Amino acid sequence: MITRMSALFLRTLREDPADAELPSHKLLVRAGYVRRAAPGVFTWLPLGLRVLRNIERVVREEMNAIGGQEIEFPALLPREPYEASGRWTEYGPLLFRLKDRKGADYLLGPTHEELFALTVKGEFSSYKDYPLFLYQIQTKYRDEARPRAGILRGREFVMKDSYSFDLDDEGLKQSYQRHREAYVRIFDRLQLNYVIVAALSGAMGGSESEEFLAESEFGEDTFVRSDSSGYAANVEAVVTSPPPEQPIGEQPPAVDHLTPNTPTIQTLVDHLNGMDLGRTFTAADTLKNVLLKLRQPGSTEWELLAIGVPGDREVDEKRLEAALEPAEVAMLTEQDFAANPFLVKGYIGPKALQDNKIRYLVDPRIVSGTAWVTGADEADHHVVDLVCGRDFTPDGTIEAAEVRAGDPSPDGQGKLVAARGIEIGHCFQLGRKYADVFELDALGADSKPIRITMGSYGIGVSRLVAAIAEQSHDDKGIIWPREVSPFGVHIVLAGKDEQIRTEGERIAAGLDAAGVEVLLDDRQVSPGVKFSDAELVGVPTILVIGRGLRDGVVELRDRFTEQRTDVPVGEAVERLLAASR
Amino acid sequence: MITRMSALFLRTLREDPADAELPSHKLLVRAGYVRRAAPGVFTWLPLGLRVLRNIERVVREEMNAIGGQEIEFPALLPREPYEASGRWTEYGPLLFRLKDRKGADYLLGPTHEELFALTVKGEFSSYKDYPLFLYQIQTKYRDEARPRAGILRGREFVMKDSYSFDLDDEGLKQSYQRHREAYVRIFDRLQLNYVIVAALSGAMGGSESEEFLAESEFGEDTFVRSDSSGYAANVEAVVTSPPPEQPIGEQPPAVDHLTPNTPTIQTLVDHLNGMDLGRTFTAADTLKNVLLKLRQPGSTEWELLAIGVPGDREVDEKRLEAALEPAEVAMLTEQDFAANPFLVKGYIGPKALQDNKIRYLVDPRIVSGTAWVTGADEADHHVVDLVCGRDFTPDGTIEAAEVRAGDPSPDGQGKLVAARGIEIGHCFQLGRKYADVFELDALGADSKPIRITMGSYGIGVSRLVAAIAEQSHDDKGIIWPREVSPFGVHIVLAGKDEQIRTEGERIAAGLDAAGVEVLLDDRQVSPGVKFSDAELVGVPTILVIGRGLRDGVVELRDRFTEQRTDVPVGEAVERLLAASR
Repeated sequence: MITRMSALFLRTLREDPADAELPSHKLLVRAGYVRRAAPGVFTWLPLGLRVLRNIERVVREEMNAIGGQEIEFPALLPREPYEASGRWTEYGPLLFRLKDRKGADYLLGPTHEELFALTVKGEFSSYKDYPLFLYQIQTKYRDEARPRAGILRGREFVMKDSYSFDLDDEGLKQSYQRHREAYVRIFDRLQLNYVIVAALSGAMGGSESEEFLAESEFGEDTFVRSDSSGYAANVEAVVTSPPPEQPIGEQPPAVDHLTPNTPTIQTLVDHLNGMDLGRTFTAADTLKNVLLKLRQPGSTEWELLAIGVPGDREVDEKRLEAALEPAEVAMLTEQDFAANPFLVKGYIGPKALQDNKIRYLVDPRIVSGTAWVTGADEADHHVVDLVCGRDFTPDGTIEAAEVRAGDPSPDGQGKLVAARGIEIGHCFQLGRKYADVFELDALGADSKPIRITMGSYGIGVSRLVAAIAEQSHDDKGIIWPREVSPFGVHIVLAGKDEQIRTEGERIAAGLDAAGVEVLLDDRQVSPGVKFSDAELVGVPTILVIGRGLRDGVVELRDRFTEQRTDVPVGEAVERLLAASR
Repeated sequence: MITRMSALFLRTLREDPADAELPSHKLLVRAGYVRRAAPGVFTWLPLGLRVLRNIERVVREEMNAIGGQEIEFPALLPREPYEASGRWTEYGPLLFRLKDRKGADYLLGPTHEELFALTVKGEFSSYKDYPLFLYQIQTKYRDEARPRAGILRGREFVMKDSYSFDLDDEGLKQSYQRHREAYVRIFDRLQLNYVIVAALSGAMGGSESEEFLAESEFGEDTFVRSDSSGYAANVEAVVTSPPPEQPIGEQPPAVDHLTPNTPTIQTLVDHLNGMDLGRTFTAADTLKNVLLKLRQPGSTEWELLAIGVPGDREVDEKRLEAALEPAEVAMLTEQDFAANPFLVKGYIGPKALQDNKIRYLVDPRIVSGTAWVTGADEADHHVVDLVCGRDFTPDGTIEAAEVRAGDPSPDGQGKLVAARGIEIGHCFQLGRKYADVFELDALGADSKPIRITMGSYGIGVSRLVAAIAEQSHDDKGIIWPREVSPFGVHIVLAGKDEQIRTEGERIAAGLDAAGVEVLLDDRQVSPGVKFSDAELVGVPTILVIGRGLRDGVVELRDRFTEQRTDVPVGEAVERLLAASR
């Protein structure tokens, strides 16, 4: 098929769209790949749909290669299965909910764990049926609070979600491994620069989990990696290495001090260092207690929670939320403080928390025997050398403190460095959560039921269009990897000579016959406009047919290397076939 | 790719599903093509998805061949464009509506006229850009009141909708013709038995319209055709041929008669024929007046409407609704009659209607000069020889009376016969309705704006899976036309000999290498189970490898002809390649 730009439904834009911040968003709109239909909801124009379909093809081929069987669930789903799993409630406002004409509750599917489990239960019954890999490439819905970033975070988006079904944990591990390897092949074929990071599971429930992140300074996910080992993790998944416990007997007694006007860590440290206590304090010696309230899914009651972190670290909101999921987290209001007068703002200490039965979770660095400066539950008072395990006993630990570049790597090798990425894939050992909900069992060889264990594997297919554009562009436009480029060759007719047109049609026909998708710029516009549109659109191989034709040559341009090569017009088809493979 | 049934996600069912009435519904569920997820909402299992994709491929190829450019709109759409076109209201309860987390109104797209018009307006501006054909193959939503019939009438379904954009009516006619021809090629390739019928446009607004109906006794659409010409029409679109007008002067005067206990047409006719009035009356001599109420879209007010039809015909609800669309129609309640005491049930006549300013529309057979027996607006009283144009004057005509087999064909050639069909395609000259709403103009060569005229063309892609199964099955199962069959060849290993397996794998590999999709039944079940599953699943070419192998032969079965042919095993691949093309 030869596509002629004179008839193509494409108008490139000179200006960046007003609502776009990211390079991929700007370029995909300017080059005519997508158009916004509503916040976070996009229309795929011809070029964009071609790239999307190419990515789907790569994903489909690799999923089929590991034995995945493609099915397709509806997007419009009944409430009941999601009610059974608890996700009708847990998803909160992220779920699009609606009613049909009879008043029955429906949702637009965000992911399909429930339906996959139910469907396998409906068809399969014997241990001989397993293992099983099913997948779909399907349109999903999430009502994001702030749908920005173009198709990188849409409210309607295309996802490949697959699920593995195994008889035991060993089988799940193998299924997980096969999916992980398929993901590596997919992202390698898409020429993405990506890292695989340890991840928390989010609302999915379950145990082991890894994310595939395309590195990008504009990514929404922050991750860390070791500067000396292969360790990499989503910030939410970083497990703090606790320091060794200290012998309690050797610590001096706790002493209460008047510390007027020290509501912040810095004012407190300055004040202590001016008190001549025989040592120098830093923020890391202080214990900051942050008050929050929690609400469990489906509940209307808020519960108070206190988090203790070293004073030199902030609480990281994403880590905190990940640690407390699926509960909802909020800061205390003035009314909350008024209702709990034992909470002395700026001077909250473990004593008041424990006396008043507030659940108190601390950073893993706060181990038994460590001594801290912290609030004395009285305005302008702090206590020094309050020892964990002697003067207070937390109810547990929580990974809520910020992770910083320079922190020791949790694997003990080197220090952490921070980077940002776009989540493009997620592999996850779901375990028996959904099998338990729906009693998904296989009848064993001994006629006893075996509870099935599941893995869940997602790829953000439409998001990949943007992730690739984000990584592969220059100031002139997009540069598509060959596997996903909307066309194999972009032919620019640079001049009005009849001979130019004739040669262009001949070469296009030759490529078409060899199965190459050709974009032929036959418009009645100047060569300059055609060149800049070609660079913007981003087909990696451009053939310019222009004045050189008098000397029997055409020009081959490579968007990756920026190389321009004159080739004899008679060899053009052959050279292009070689270049476009 | 060779698909092995031992690993395929497929379990055929012996029993028909309890909720299924149609053969296609029963067979598609029993053969494991689809599963119900909610009323009118289905999951595509591997076999079903293959057939669906094959149909999509055929549709896509033919749409591309006429210059259609594929794009894809979202299913989740903002209210505003549908508000502007009036369809947010007009669609009534057929539209799935929902709100996002911010309370903004959305809908799930039933068709995308508004978005197509808006998108073309956004990209194109010059007369040189036209004509333009755009299409999408996309998931659509309609909240059907009674979603029965499996995927034949789903609430979530796949549709191909395309639109043509032209500068003038002549262009639209040509675009319409090209789509019509493409539709003929598509339905021919799918080996469907179909008719093209004149149709009304429904809620779309616009002028000329044709439906493609797959003939089927279980179809929801009734259509009629002439027994002597090519005329065929949707029942809603049949235009009654009026009889010639009669000279008023020759008619006898109207006479009021006491007709006790004659609330029905039959009792009235019997009574009149017993009165010795010098002639014999039939139901066709009576004029039946039916009272209705109407509500315009968006309005809360009901308006009374009277319909007059010859007493030998019922009012056809579908024709009535089509004639009055987009208004909502309802029968009068007892309260309505009580509020309008001039309406004497069973004895309503034109006089009371006109005296009380009730809009009165009559069947086209009620022409000037015709004399009727009708109600005298008094219990037990009828009037004979009430002449149209002399004694009463209707406000207009309406096509609401039933169409009957034997009625004269509207083209004047022969009589009508009735049949049923499944609507599989719809071509429609939409005109400027949406272009007017969104001011879709092109700048002409003279710098003056030209209002664009649109055509709209739909194909029910997922419905076609059922329509084909409905037409192509026997009592053993489905028989897929080759273009859409989930596999090219179904190989049955009928026996446990190692040699049978070896030959099966060899032949499967040979077919696979030649690009044929092979389903290999390698399960550990009896040959009988395999045969009946093969017939149920419906791949048209079955190869049985069994005992014949001792004599060097395998058996080729054709599901269409029921022919069984022994072929030498060495020629099997070659013969199958010939058969599966």
